[in-house]
Amino acid sequence: MRAKPLVTLLTDFGARDPFAGIMKGVILGICPDASLVDLSHEVPAHDVLGASFLLQTAVRAFPAGTIHVAVVDPGVGGARRPILAEIDGQIFVAPDNGLLTHRFASAGRRRVRHLVAQEYWRHPVSASFHGRDIFAPVAGHLAAGVEPARFGPEIVDPVCLEIPQPRVDGAGRIQGTVMWVDRFGNCITNIAQKELESIAGAAGGSIHVHAGGRPLGTLVGCFGAVLPGEAGAILGSAGYVELFCNRSDLARQWSLAPGDQVLLETADGP
Amino acid sequence: MRAKPLVTLLTDFGARDPFAGIMKGVILGICPDASLVDLSHEVPAHDVLGASFLLQTAVRAFPAGTIHVAVVDPGVGGARRPILAEIDGQIFVAPDNGLLTHRFASAGRRRVRHLVAQEYWRHPVSASFHGRDIFAPVAGHLAAGVEPARFGPEIVDPVCLEIPQPRVDGAGRIQGTVMWVDRFGNCITNIAQKELESIAGAAGGSIHVHAGGRPLGTLVGCFGAVLPGEAGAILGSAGYVELFCNRSDLARQWSLAPGDQVLLETADGP
Amino acid sequence: MRAKPLVTLLTDFGARDPFAGIMKGVILGICPDASLVDLSHEVPAHDVLGASFLLQTAVRAFPAGTIHVAVVDPGVGGARRPILAEIDGQIFVAPDNGLLTHRFASAGRRRVRHLVAQEYWRHPVSASFHGRDIFAPVAGHLAAGVEPARFGPEIVDPVCLEIPQPRVDGAGRIQGTVMWVDRFGNCITNIAQKELESIAGAAGGSIHVHAGGRPLGTLVGCFGAVLPGEAGAILGSAGYVELFCNRSDLARQWSLAPGDQVLLETADGP
Repeated sequence: MRAKPLVTLLTDFGARDPFAGIMKGVILGICPDASLVDLSHEVPAHDVLGASFLLQTAVRAFPAGTIHVAVVDPGVGGARRPILAEIDGQIFVAPDNGLLTHRFASAGRRRVRHLVAQEYWRHPVSASFHGRDIFAPVAGHLAAGVEPARFGPEIVDPVCLEIPQPRVDGAGRIQGTVMWVDRFGNCITNIAQKELESIAGAAGGSIHVHAGGRPLGTLVGCFGAVLPGEAGAILGSAGYVELFCNRSDLARQWSLAPGDQVLLETADGP
Repeated sequence: MRAKPLVTLLTDFGARDPFAGIMKGVILGICPDASLVDLSHEVPAHDVLGASFLLQTAVRAFPAGTIHVAVVDPGVGGARRPILAEIDGQIFVAPDNGLLTHRFASAGRRRVRHLVAQEYWRHPVSASFHGRDIFAPVAGHLAAGVEPARFGPEIVDPVCLEIPQPRVDGAGRIQGTVMWVDRFGNCITNIAQKELESIAGAAGGSIHVHAGGRPLGTLVGCFGAVLPGEAGAILGSAGYVELFCNRSDLARQWSLAPGDQVLLETADGP
Repeated sequence: MRAKPLVTLLTDFGARDPFAGIMKGVILGICPDASLVDLSHEVPAHDVLGASFLLQTAVRAFPAGTIHVAVVDPGVGGARRPILAEIDGQIFVAPDNGLLTHRFASAGRRRVRHLVAQEYWRHPVSASFHGRDIFAPVAGHLAAGVEPARFGPEIVDPVCLEIPQPRVDGAGRIQGTVMWVDRFGNCITNIAQKELESIAGAAGGSIHVHAGGRPLGTLVGCFGAVLPGEAGAILGSAGYVELFCNRSDLARQWSLAPGDQVLLETADGP
């Protein structure tokens, strides 16, 4: 028996309007037994790269076969392609505007298709809500068991945005970038465990963190390792170094935002 | 076999309080296999007409048999009736305060009942949360297969609020009203496709849009037909003319809000 | 046959980040047929006592066997224990930091366990997201039918925070505290029906309400018993006295917040 299908939604639609609910109505109209999970509908409007990052942090918690529908789509109704991507055992349905950048970058195996089979769309297709008219019905038919190959031909050139990359130098330093600020004000960087190990292995001892040109604290094991109100950094749950202020909002206190630079250095660094 | 029941919720309860979750607990306690979909819980507090409009834009995406529970209910605990309405193959459960105004206005067939059968309510009934004690349990029993006729007698005089109507003159002009501002700042008007066709047929050529007494742009096919930062209008996904600013927030930039007047005129108009 | 499992989530994770969605992915990966209900993810960050209060107002609407996962967890990764509590036929999974204070205070029967059986966790366990790595997988296994006893040994000393208690004097007065402000600006106090009955029984007649040292209005039966814009109090749907302003936002108008004092007195009081 086929497992109960699981479909997630990630959009910049917000909570005021029924856009996400409408997509769910379309999906359940096609596949009534699907389980639906909201990843977020509060991606900042039109923030494609932010959505790509969030999606990346979420997918590993979902089982094989999960269908992820992501719609942050400022070019809706224009020339950008709607696509479907099979990546490491999960399926992604999204506009081809870079929304899957982080997934493509870390993918083992991937197969990408251009959605052209209009018999799986909702008609008439509006010019401003392909979430309802293309992405949701495609997700619904996928959940109902239609094979990915039925939706369109393979393509090899999906759009990938430029992702800021951390730089490790030979002096035990990593230069990174804040990628996302979470609801607690924690600042999630692009510095992953492997970069961290490259300098930790080189030096041992504690790692000091600077942000906005100022020393912020050291890398510790958990939030509670520093006193309430004090700042530090941990290897966060998404697999990246996160800057935090224990029981407080670091981003607000330090005026940090995505794009800001972060420096990590070993204790015996310069 | 009966299809898997689908119940939507539309309220002004917000996301901070567990009110919507409580309603879901009541529904699933009665009908454990129901699928539940949130349309919105961020209707402005007590905005009955806004909720009526949102509901109207959402229902067509849902399959026949869907049960929509709508609770924007400033008169809760007072004399207003709780009702159930069968409209075009779907069922609506709501206070009788105008929440179904747009649905009634566009309905083909409708049958409305006064909810009086207290054996389908949750007891004791509180004076301030009929969502939990009347509307949710009624929806649960409907989802579980109880026939609408069991909940109460038919009525013929449900409350309908006055909806602003667009006016078309003989000179190729339509005077309309902003009904809703969505999360992107797009301003959805009450001007539907049929009004649009009445002036487009009369004149051909492009259609110019004015808002707040100023020329805003022209009616185009999609957001991307104007440059980023420029304004225009499209026939939106809800079936109404929407004013927008490409990749920006029109309502904020032009200080537009529900109730504001909009003028459309053909190119060769005055 | 086992009933369809029902799992609720209550957190301070907000709507921007996919944290709650990630927890759902973990739960559904273990128990695909679970129904998931959000109570709230907008508890103020780190507000353990507020979350405890909200949970208390919600649980009675849910059927026996419901699994409630509550994660407001400023001490995540530190020494605080993860626990499971069986209370009055429902199961609670939470950090042992006082989140279940109100449930413990009103519980008939309870059995509390320290979650130590790591075979039911997700590995590696991060230092900052036990919602994903401990609480969600435990909830998933509970939903899938694993017996509570398998998760860890009983404990008798779960953390309980101090809850402000209303004081009733012999002169027909009750001194209470605002516990929560809901989205409408209604101020929910800690004064329950039994306190109310103690002074109502003593005096009869109307009950006057004071807040912030000023007379606010009287206790009435429903919001509509006072004119729009006027204030009053009702015995609210959560079982506590609520202060309100009809069709308006009392908390904003009177600058009321959790912790503020409220006085109720019978008409013939001082």
